[in-house]
Amino acid sequence: MQRIRLTLEGRKDSSYDLLIGRGILSSLHREIQRLGSFSFYGLVTDEVVRPLVAEPLLEELKSYGIKTALFTLPAGEATKTMDTVVDLCHELTTLSFDRKSLLIAVGGGVIGDITGFAAAIYMRGIRYIQVPTTLLAQVDSAIGGKTGVDLPSGKNLLGAFHQPLLVLADPDVLGTLPPDAMRDGFAEIIKSALIGQPKLFSILEMEGANLLNADNPMLENIIADACSVKCRVVSQDELEAGLRRILNFGHTLGHALEAASNYKISHGHAVAAGMGAAVQFSRQWAGLTSDEADRALSLIRKLGLPTELPADVDVNSLLVALERDKKIQAGICHFVLISKIGQAIIHPISVEDLRQSLTQIQGFRDSGIQGFQ
Amino acid sequence: MQRIRLTLEGRKDSSYDLLIGRGILSSLHREIQRLGSFSFYGLVTDEVVRPLVAEPLLEELKSYGIKTALFTLPAGEATKTMDTVVDLCHELTTLSFDRKSLLIAVGGGVIGDITGFAAAIYMRGIRYIQVPTTLLAQVDSAIGGKTGVDLPSGKNLLGAFHQPLLVLADPDVLGTLPPDAMRDGFAEIIKSALIGQPKLFSILEMEGANLLNADNPMLENIIADACSVKCRVVSQDELEAGLRRILNFGHTLGHALEAASNYKISHGHAVAAGMGAAVQFSRQWAGLTSDEADRALSLIRKLGLPTELPADVDVNSLLVALERDKKIQAGICHFVLISKIGQAIIHPISVEDLRQSLTQIQGFRDSGIQGFQ
Repeated sequence: MQRIRLTLEGRKDSSYDLLIGRGILSSLHREIQRLGSFSFYGLVTDEVVRPLVAEPLLEELKSYGIKTALFTLPAGEATKTMDTVVDLCHELTTLSFDRKSLLIAVGGGVIGDITGFAAAIYMRGIRYIQVPTTLLAQVDSAIGGKTGVDLPSGKNLLGAFHQPLLVLADPDVLGTLPPDAMRDGFAEIIKSALIGQPKLFSILEMEGANLLNADNPMLENIIADACSVKCRVVSQDELEAGLRRILNFGHTLGHALEAASNYKISHGHAVAAGMGAAVQFSRQWAGLTSDEADRALSLIRKLGLPTELPADVDVNSLLVALERDKKIQAGICHFVLISKIGQAIIHPISVEDLRQSLTQIQGFRDSGIQGFQ
Repeated sequence: MQRIRLTLEGRKDSSYDLLIGRGILSSLHREIQRLGSFSFYGLVTDEVVRPLVAEPLLEELKSYGIKTALFTLPAGEATKTMDTVVDLCHELTTLSFDRKSLLIAVGGGVIGDITGFAAAIYMRGIRYIQVPTTLLAQVDSAIGGKTGVDLPSGKNLLGAFHQPLLVLADPDVLGTLPPDAMRDGFAEIIKSALIGQPKLFSILEMEGANLLNADNPMLENIIADACSVKCRVVSQDELEAGLRRILNFGHTLGHALEAASNYKISHGHAVAAGMGAAVQFSRQWAGLTSDEADRALSLIRKLGLPTELPADVDVNSLLVALERDKKIQAGICHFVLISKIGQAIIHPISVEDLRQSLTQIQGFRDSGIQGFQ
């Protein structure tokens, strides 16, 4: 088991632990008791995770005297609305939940975001714990306190920075994930390696596709390594005033791609394609060597992820999505690039350079020229 | 003009100024420019305040080059719902408001609470300014960063602590307030004097009912004095972990009374009646002298406010409301009392003592015995 402390600069009282380990879920009751006493306990999950993880966990908590109410939401991104949060909070009031209550989010990113946001605003803030059950949530969304819901006009437009009391990531729960969901998680793990941990990159290179097997004994350390990159960044810039933006490596184009595809492309796959382009940009503008660029692209592909923008997405629609996402200001887009594996920088790219480079990337792909890849 | 700095312990970067003065509204443009540059400006108000204050202000901002979008909400507590906040935020997205936008709340407590909460959660937090236009908002709700909306099951159940960048209180806007609204404001001003400022209490005693005239030249200083009490408390306990509770003097029973009356009694009038009872409790349990108790009750009455619980509210329904409001725990209710004018203490009262004392208060009133008053 690995314990990583996320220390928030200037807010020691809001610092918290990430516990990563196989079977760690069975110590949730002990961890809760360590955190103090609460008046009411509520576990929030979705229909898919409920029978697999939430119900056994609930029984276990009960056997240790922690009586926990269960709130089950529909699975999927469509649940991530303010109506869901309001309904959940209304249910909390009918069960007399007060300021000293504790919520436990058991699920993927959607459940974590909803539960965290409900905890942020219920009675102006109650405490909560993250128990992420997807690889993506374990290495990314459950860490760092970003919570929120979507508006019809865009994703995560309403939300709060609200840090959990604890994050408990158990690789044992990943066994039931479909392969594409594992790949989604690895997009973020590769990102962490590329922006901040060359050692992790080497391990990923060595293991390759073996990692998609949830039983792989290396997985626990890999999750912990990816988490530690995120913790290091968040600890220095909780509210995303500067440094935290490097976590957006691959995400600038990734988000544009998700939006342009009307969210038919999954987050991880979009980020992977976005990283593919960002690696090309890094070679072009940030001094990344061709050798390292090739290694990065090769690793992304080894994990079964795309490094290219889909053929049916044209450059213009990407630029429009970037514009709408406020990523282009005064004709400039600030991209996260890497100068070498493990070293992120922020680099301004003009819209014209961007258009040219993206067109070139698309052109190379369409022409089937191997060298580019 | 008076400038009061609200310095938040351990969060100097979130500290801000309260400016109180006649005609101060005309310097809003200058204050905004001092605060930095923003990408978009939005003014939120209600139908009643719009023609009186918001539109002239908007014109003035425009004349100084600050182009500001106007958002008008229906007036009244019924507007204070999450739907209103979501609709407002949705409108912000359609106008391309981003993280660097500024909202300006121009109105009473409802507008301030809604705008502050929208600012707290829009894109995980944008900046806002409070321009309170009721006396109650100027001396209380606009200060301290408590924002929120109601649920069907209770008031202010969803919300956030989100401090404004600036509070601008102009007594000149109070001229159009109905007398009862002025009295509501004075309930909080008297509270501030009783819990923290004997000097203010003496001034209020001397001026008495003259203060209900919005042209009274003393008003500016009185507002500033009341604000400084609240600032002193909030600066030490932003998140209401302890000290901030003393601001609830008169509010424990006041809230119960509002709830028991189904919100037919206004906040200020309910708080006044709650203070009336709390003064009696203070004489009984906190060593408040009969002389000071009489002076306190007399001042509340001078301002045209009640010191007694309404005849049609029975003691049991108050206790039920306290229970529902989580104010009674393990048979004990923690009351804010005063040991002398200007000195608040927290005192535990058992439900039985509370019932007995309230029944006695009601009985005295019903029997018409003057001595009690």
